[in-house]
Amino acid sequence: MLAGEFPVILYSAVLMCFLAIDLGGTKLAVAVFTHNGDLLRKEKTMLDKREGAEVGQLIASQIEKFIREEKEEIIQSIGISIPGIYHTREGTVWAPNIGGWNNYPLLKEVQAIAAHIPVSIESDRSCYILGEWWKGAAKNCTDAIFLAVGTGIGAGILTGGNILRGANDIAGAIGWMALQQPFDPQYVDCGCLETIASGEGIAKFTRKLLLQNPDYKGLLKNAPQLLTAIDVIDAYDRGDTISVQVVDRCIEIWGMAIANLVSLFNPQKIILGGGVFGPAVKFIPAIYKEAMKWAQPISMGQVVIEASVLGADAGLFGAAYLAVQNLKPKSIHE
Amino acid sequence: MLAGEFPVILYSAVLMCFLAIDLGGTKLAVAVFTHNGDLLRKEKTMLDKREGAEVGQLIASQIEKFIREEKEEIIQSIGISIPGIYHTREGTVWAPNIGGWNNYPLLKEVQAIAAHIPVSIESDRSCYILGEWWKGAAKNCTDAIFLAVGTGIGAGILTGGNILRGANDIAGAIGWMALQQPFDPQYVDCGCLETIASGEGIAKFTRKLLLQNPDYKGLLKNAPQLLTAIDVIDAYDRGDTISVQVVDRCIEIWGMAIANLVSLFNPQKIILGGGVFGPAVKFIPAIYKEAMKWAQPISMGQVVIEASVLGADAGLFGAAYLAVQNLKPKSIHE
Repeated sequence: MLAGEFPVILYSAVLMCFLAIDLGGTKLAVAVFTHNGDLLRKEKTMLDKREGAEVGQLIASQIEKFIREEKEEIIQSIGISIPGIYHTREGTVWAPNIGGWNNYPLLKEVQAIAAHIPVSIESDRSCYILGEWWKGAAKNCTDAIFLAVGTGIGAGILTGGNILRGANDIAGAIGWMALQQPFDPQYVDCGCLETIASGEGIAKFTRKLLLQNPDYKGLLKNAPQLLTAIDVIDAYDRGDTISVQVVDRCIEIWGMAIANLVSLFNPQKIILGGGVFGPAVKFIPAIYKEAMKWAQPISMGQVVIEASVLGADAGLFGAAYLAVQNLKPKSIHE
Repeated sequence: MLAGEFPVILYSAVLMCFLAIDLGGTKLAVAVFTHNGDLLRKEKTMLDKREGAEVGQLIASQIEKFIREEKEEIIQSIGISIPGIYHTREGTVWAPNIGGWNNYPLLKEVQAIAAHIPVSIESDRSCYILGEWWKGAAKNCTDAIFLAVGTGIGAGILTGGNILRGANDIAGAIGWMALQQPFDPQYVDCGCLETIASGEGIAKFTRKLLLQNPDYKGLLKNAPQLLTAIDVIDAYDRGDTISVQVVDRCIEIWGMAIANLVSLFNPQKIILGGGVFGPAVKFIPAIYKEAMKWAQPISMGQVVIEASVLGADAGLFGAAYLAVQNLKPKSIHE
């Protein structure tokens, strides 16, 4: 099980602490945490156009800097959240939004810098649910799911107190969920659910509708190339016709996807997060209503659907939890 | 983990053995197994019109009889597969096809008869995957799914070596999987996937098409009320137009459902069983092709989709495995 006692070690004024690293597709966040989840400080660096080994070097140099700079704190352990798949057996990372990270040997590289300090790495989706379990919306849950809807869509899944990894660490690829016949060739790149209802998908479909409706004079008519899902969601409450069309389709599709998670996993909670949830949390009652139509009714009656408590910091808290877990007797999480 | 050593205990000519009970919606199977999975003998009893406590009494009397009759074998432990949900905390069963079994106290009733002999109970879908893991198609898997397509549809799911139960033992209710907008009021009773692609759903849709096509003169025209999914599947190879229409729709829907399992669980194997697979195993290549269109491509490349090895005995083998597990040091299965 997840819970357990952690030995608090204090030497005079020196505080034992934990380094959490959250690598995203465009930026790197590094933070120092106490063993019980207090965030002491946080620093963000943009990746700019770094690729391949440059990203690895950035992480390594940040670790080195934090180890060196921490005067009154001693870093005991490091946890890293990565935007893709972490292959636990090989210690390598596949991250589609970081150039050259097809099979990147991150563990080896970081461990060389960290020396005797233990390092754990995990996929961002797993870190989100671990973070929410530790310090957010999924406290005390044994079965809970974090549905992350941002540029893409992924799910971090906790079942019976364990992170669901699958045979080769690729579990939770819910962006590929099939929800609508006929098959559309657009789905080839990133799956049906992600094509329709991710941040990217929302912006793309809106642009398509704008092209199809040259007479449209609404809120979304300017600069379609700069349009984001957030703009589309913001326009909904003002009754914008295109926004309503796009968002209502997403509510149906999110509702079906959540219903499927409820029927398959019988979870206590489903937590909605990522950049889109965010502003789309106002649609949770409508999404719940849609899910109720489809899901196994007893499981549906038992689940709570709510917004992420940790928001953009969910991955960082999950990474911190990995770091804290590193110092415990081997748990089923690792 | 699942594996482990079992101490073989032999006293002269007396063989220590295990009682496996598989309760279905219409019949009860009881079998005697050795510790390593050899089936020694099996007996079936029809439920006829038994309901409620009569079914409990039938199980109890069969246990009593087997304990009494076994001369050269001593029953060490009992495992029971039930056609519904087993509430592990309460020891009660919900079985929709057995009248009055909404919250039936089966464990208490059976334990009163079994006395000192330990008893374990599990849902049929969990028993199917445990049986296949122990002695069938899922040997050596840590992540495998048994998709049971019969009158209804359910999934027994093994993830990271553990049976997926969910917060309240209702996980695996895949008959409720949402796969097609718009929502059809027919789905209210048993879900979208089950309405379209279960044995019952296949027969019902075929009857509807027969009514809509009064000029149809094909193989399925006689006695539509007695028509089964098996008849419809059998007519497919002979090019029957209605069979082709019904089965092709099922292949699409089964393909989508399997794709969703692949993307979410990243399993090593998906095993197709139940009364429909059975004869529908000939469609596995077509189902695989459909799933390939939808699923996360790396996970899809890693999964094997195949027919049940144990067939109608999968639940019995799973129940036998439960019985064997009873005598081991407490495992994560129990």
